[in-house]
Amino acid sequence: MNYITYLAPVGAVIALLFAFYLAKKVLRADEGTELMKKISMSVRKGANAYLKRQYTGVAGFFAVLFVVLIVMAAFGFLTWFVPFAFLTGGFFSGLSGFIGMKIATASNARTANAAQKSLNTGLRVAFSAGGVMGFVVVGLGLFDISFWYFFLKWWFSNPDHLVIAAGQTLEAAQIQAITSAMLTFGMGASSMALFARVGGGIFTKAADVGADLVGKVEAGIPEDDPRNPAVIADNVGDNVGDVAGMGADLYESYVGSIISTGALAVAAGMGFSGVTIPMVMAAIGIIASIIGTFFVQTKEGASQKNLLSALRRGTWISAALVAVIAFPLIYFVLGSDKIGLYVAIICGLLAGVLIGFFTEYYTSDTYKPTQKLSATSETGPATIIIGGLSLGMRSTAIPVIIVGVAVLISYFVSGGGDDFNMGLYGIGLSAVGMLSTLGITLATDAYGPVADNAGGIAEMAGLGEEVRERTDALDSLGNTTAATGKGFAIGSAALTALALIASYLAEIKVIDPEYFANLNLNITNPAVLIGLFIGGMLPFLFAALTMEAVGRAAQGIVMEVRRQFREITGLMEGKAEPDYASCVDICTKSAQKEMIMPAILAVVVPIVVGLILGVAGVAGMLAGATVSGFILAVMMANSGGAWDNAKKYIEAGKHGGKGSDAHKAAVVGDTVGDPFKDTSGPAINILIKLLSMVSIVFANVILAFSLIR
Amino acid sequence: MNYITYLAPVGAVIALLFAFYLAKKVLRADEGTELMKKISMSVRKGANAYLKRQYTGVAGFFAVLFVVLIVMAAFGFLTWFVPFAFLTGGFFSGLSGFIGMKIATASNARTANAAQKSLNTGLRVAFSAGGVMGFVVVGLGLFDISFWYFFLKWWFSNPDHLVIAAGQTLEAAQIQAITSAMLTFGMGASSMALFARVGGGIFTKAADVGADLVGKVEAGIPEDDPRNPAVIADNVGDNVGDVAGMGADLYESYVGSIISTGALAVAAGMGFSGVTIPMVMAAIGIIASIIGTFFVQTKEGASQKNLLSALRRGTWISAALVAVIAFPLIYFVLGSDKIGLYVAIICGLLAGVLIGFFTEYYTSDTYKPTQKLSATSETGPATIIIGGLSLGMRSTAIPVIIVGVAVLISYFVSGGGDDFNMGLYGIGLSAVGMLSTLGITLATDAYGPVADNAGGIAEMAGLGEEVRERTDALDSLGNTTAATGKGFAIGSAALTALALIASYLAEIKVIDPEYFANLNLNITNPAVLIGLFIGGMLPFLFAALTMEAVGRAAQGIVMEVRRQFREITGLMEGKAEPDYASCVDICTKSAQKEMIMPAILAVVVPIVVGLILGVAGVAGMLAGATVSGFILAVMMANSGGAWDNAKKYIEAGKHGGKGSDAHKAAVVGDTVGDPFKDTSGPAINILIKLLSMVSIVFANVILAFSLIR
Repeated sequence: MNYITYLAPVGAVIALLFAFYLAKKVLRADEGTELMKKISMSVRKGANAYLKRQYTGVAGFFAVLFVVLIVMAAFGFLTWFVPFAFLTGGFFSGLSGFIGMKIATASNARTANAAQKSLNTGLRVAFSAGGVMGFVVVGLGLFDISFWYFFLKWWFSNPDHLVIAAGQTLEAAQIQAITSAMLTFGMGASSMALFARVGGGIFTKAADVGADLVGKVEAGIPEDDPRNPAVIADNVGDNVGDVAGMGADLYESYVGSIISTGALAVAAGMGFSGVTIPMVMAAIGIIASIIGTFFVQTKEGASQKNLLSALRRGTWISAALVAVIAFPLIYFVLGSDKIGLYVAIICGLLAGVLIGFFTEYYTSDTYKPTQKLSATSETGPATIIIGGLSLGMRSTAIPVIIVGVAVLISYFVSGGGDDFNMGLYGIGLSAVGMLSTLGITLATDAYGPVADNAGGIAEMAGLGEEVRERTDALDSLGNTTAATGKGFAIGSAALTALALIASYLAEIKVIDPEYFANLNLNITNPAVLIGLFIGGMLPFLFAALTMEAVGRAAQGIVMEVRRQFREITGLMEGKAEPDYASCVDICTKSAQKEMIMPAILAVVVPIVVGLILGVAGVAGMLAGATVSGFILAVMMANSGGAWDNAKKYIEAGKHGGKGSDAHKAAVVGDTVGDPFKDTSGPAINILIKLLSMVSIVFANVILAFSLIR
Repeated sequence: MNYITYLAPVGAVIALLFAFYLAKKVLRADEGTELMKKISMSVRKGANAYLKRQYTGVAGFFAVLFVVLIVMAAFGFLTWFVPFAFLTGGFFSGLSGFIGMKIATASNARTANAAQKSLNTGLRVAFSAGGVMGFVVVGLGLFDISFWYFFLKWWFSNPDHLVIAAGQTLEAAQIQAITSAMLTFGMGASSMALFARVGGGIFTKAADVGADLVGKVEAGIPEDDPRNPAVIADNVGDNVGDVAGMGADLYESYVGSIISTGALAVAAGMGFSGVTIPMVMAAIGIIASIIGTFFVQTKEGASQKNLLSALRRGTWISAALVAVIAFPLIYFVLGSDKIGLYVAIICGLLAGVLIGFFTEYYTSDTYKPTQKLSATSETGPATIIIGGLSLGMRSTAIPVIIVGVAVLISYFVSGGGDDFNMGLYGIGLSAVGMLSTLGITLATDAYGPVADNAGGIAEMAGLGEEVRERTDALDSLGNTTAATGKGFAIGSAALTALALIASYLAEIKVIDPEYFANLNLNITNPAVLIGLFIGGMLPFLFAALTMEAVGRAAQGIVMEVRRQFREITGLMEGKAEPDYASCVDICTKSAQKEMIMPAILAVVVPIVVGLILGVAGVAGMLAGATVSGFILAVMMANSGGAWDNAKKYIEAGKHGGKGSDAHKAAVVGDTVGDPFKDTSGPAINILIKLLSMVSIVFANVILAFSLIR
């Protein structure tokens, strides 16, 4: 096993090198006309300005928490590694988003330009840009994990640095110390991810909704029209929300699943192999994903359907490769009696694919649900809203069953029937399995906003009908992959959150075995029950806060766009240029301001619940938030996706087409769906993991001071 | 204690006599002009036709389940009482709704007529009609409970009829046999309630939405215009949905809380007193409620605000009386060491009042949230939809905290810290405390639809501006009390559901103590976790099914109304009469058809989950459904209520008033809110209790056949 462990850092470096190679390839492409360069530069400048301000704000938050953690370490509630691990988690998560955003904004004009040649060349550029993001995320994630693993292993190889409990072997004490410290850098990643998702989500939807409300509805100019002062902000939003936000989100799921599974290895008695298997699995996934990317290409003149199957082929081949390579890994390294863990990995892989498929089924206009939804637009906005909400609600059933079945099988095949802790370890591994192919899944996902931006640039630079048609095709394909990606992000968040809950309780057991032995986690314990209620409510409160934030921020944009239309003479005639920067600035400031409350909520609630209701209350809260958060996130993502595509379906000529009353009703649905699918829904993913992370870091404090024990 | 127990049947009879007295009083009032009588008769006929068909359909469902229960009894899975108890529960629940509906439809014209005299006389008639409903529900509920209690006590006084477990006293065996049998008639009440709520909810909203979409929006005629063919169906809907449905719902909560608390007395070792205290508390609540009703009156010429405080005074005085009388009951009957149970009762009373208040806060246009919501209508339907959804989501936080605090305090003051079972008994008693004043709470609640109908009749009979203004005032007051009532219904459902979950587990312990001792109810047990996920998802699926049902049924009404406008010549000019009956018939048929699926879901899912995941899975499912159901129900009720009142606020002249674009946007919000607050939201209340009831009845089967043990 020892040597195989080195696969993890090697895999990380390979991923980063591959990302570098892809980036070089993208940057070699031509950016097109001067106008295209100029527009692209505006988007880039806006995105940079936003990220700079966001990172400054986040730095303040991290500084405060760093001091808190230092103080806690000084009082002996944490080891000294924790504050620093927290910082690296945050740093790498932010860096993933930053690099992804950089390359995305560098490739939008290039994609539009490439689309002038053919659909396929456009796809290649956009997909490569997405690939940079995907492999940076997995590369940096696995690098951070490997760094801490090897460093901590070296540090704790000195028994003087260890506290060895009575009856504990040296090895067990080492593993425990390593995994405990590693768990906490997940909190840094989660905090950063929350800011990126919430801030980016608010930015992108405020710009989008604001631009549409005044531009499309009031002034009657088309989408992405250069006369609209908010159009650059809208394009910036795609990058800071869908790229940087999504990257930080999945960085956090990826890292969370690997380190929580490692932590579960302690209780399961799996030794060092148990800790490193998830890391090695991740490395295998990286290799498989890289191979997969080479299958994403089609012949020239391919139809949109061909393109989709090209993207899918890449993902499926990667998954199949992981399934093949994981077998000898488990069989030869862990032994034939542990082959059940292999089945758990396959469960996770399959669950990810299936949830992705059903997300597409419920949100794509090639299937019944969205087609039926678009028909409800004929009786006005009220019926399409009711229809979309019930579609979203109904669509939660299948993912719940998929996750349930995956959890159940993973648990039992891993030996949970005899040894509870082995079962939990199996559940953790299934999350790792699901996320192992993240490199390529994220590439197809991040491809979407790049294509979306390319479309915007094609429109603004007046590249002609044909090119615009191609970028539209790329964009529409991007919507499908984005929907699949969202389902995948939610599914992996649920499994990761479950693994994190188990890790939390494992931590409690390590810190105070006696307390743990007397801990009543029965769902009939009032502390657990009340925790369930509070946890169940949090995603709702969180969704409300973020939706309201989008509303307020969008109002600001509406005012500004109206002001510019009124005050800048010649703007509507195309003789004067709008002040794009002011809209970007407004979005930046609002997003910055509005992301504070939700973040504080996510950090403070677990501590308050813990201080009042104790560990049982926290465990209940985590379970409640995971359950209701998963369901609400699926609902919001699918309602939003279906409304979006129902509108597109009508725009393609159904039910009266563009400009009809049905279309107007569908636009209402789409506008409601915007914060659903791109702000609140995705932010819930992170909320449920951050709650666990905070609980883990503050476990000692809760144990010392909780009111109910 | 023995003699005090007789208070229960005495209280039941007093409630029924008082209802009879109120009914006589209402029926003495004059129905007004011939036209008013005719309209009222149409509503009556429609409601009767609907209920007749509903009860026929439900009878089929009950017949099937009755046979199933008989077969189960034959195989020894149930005692022979169960099938019959099931029938009586269903029968009395249905009867409550039926009588309530009868008196409501008899008093709508009378209220309109009385409003010709003054606001106050109108209020008296409508409130008395509501009172009939309130006291019939509590009277029949307590009567059914008393009947079974005394019958079973007599039957099981013969030790030959008992199975006495090793080490069990005769008394313990008796109590256990009595409470087990009583629990199961709750399933009858719940099933009936589900049909009444779902069927009635679909009927009322299909008629309402359908009437508005064609009448108000397309034809541009006012609400309640007699030319609209769906107007009678709309009025019928108020009665079958808001009266009969609400009655059956609260009958079921009332009965459920009393019998589940009684069942918890066994494990808590409270003896016969423990079983009868909830019954006696209910009787005390009846007396207190009757006294309270006499305080509901104001001077002539009172303002609307005075009226509201008059209604409130009645409720508050009743609650205070219960608080006073419950003290000696607990102190002298149970002893001073059990005084904590008194505090639990007060907790429940207070929680009910507080949840009601916050429901009003979030949904009434006299407070900030709804006023702010109405302002979002200025930027169109999308923003008011987003605003209403986030208002609803945000409004879930406080009720969750109230319920949490009530549960926590009730548990600990009852001695849960030392004896877990005493704590659960305390939680049950707090539910009983909350529901003890149901007589008067329900009276103020059921007053709403009567006033609403009276307004409709005043409009249709052309009673003049002044009368219409008064009935509008009564109606608006009714909206406030209905909102409070909804909060109360949800809060009591949550507490009752928690008590039922505890009863379910207590039943399992009784049936198979060994199995129970090995039962792992930890939230980390995958069966529990998966149960949580499935349970958490059910309210969403249920809400989707019922909302879609309303949509489909409303489509039918839209077609029919359009057809009549097109085919009946002279209809729009008021020269010909529309065919009201056909709309009533369509609603009846749709409601009948559409209520089947949700009902089957509620009965089948707990059995399937139990057969696969065992008792732990069922327990998880019940907890998950209670948590997410409570939160979703609060959200849907409050979003819906706030949209409704935001629209009314605009109609009162704010933000451009009637006919403005803001008003049109608000109408969209209101239409979305209709199925939220009157169909799906309330149905969830019943779902979460019915799931527990079904689990209890099928406990033996699950224990015998479940896959995972």
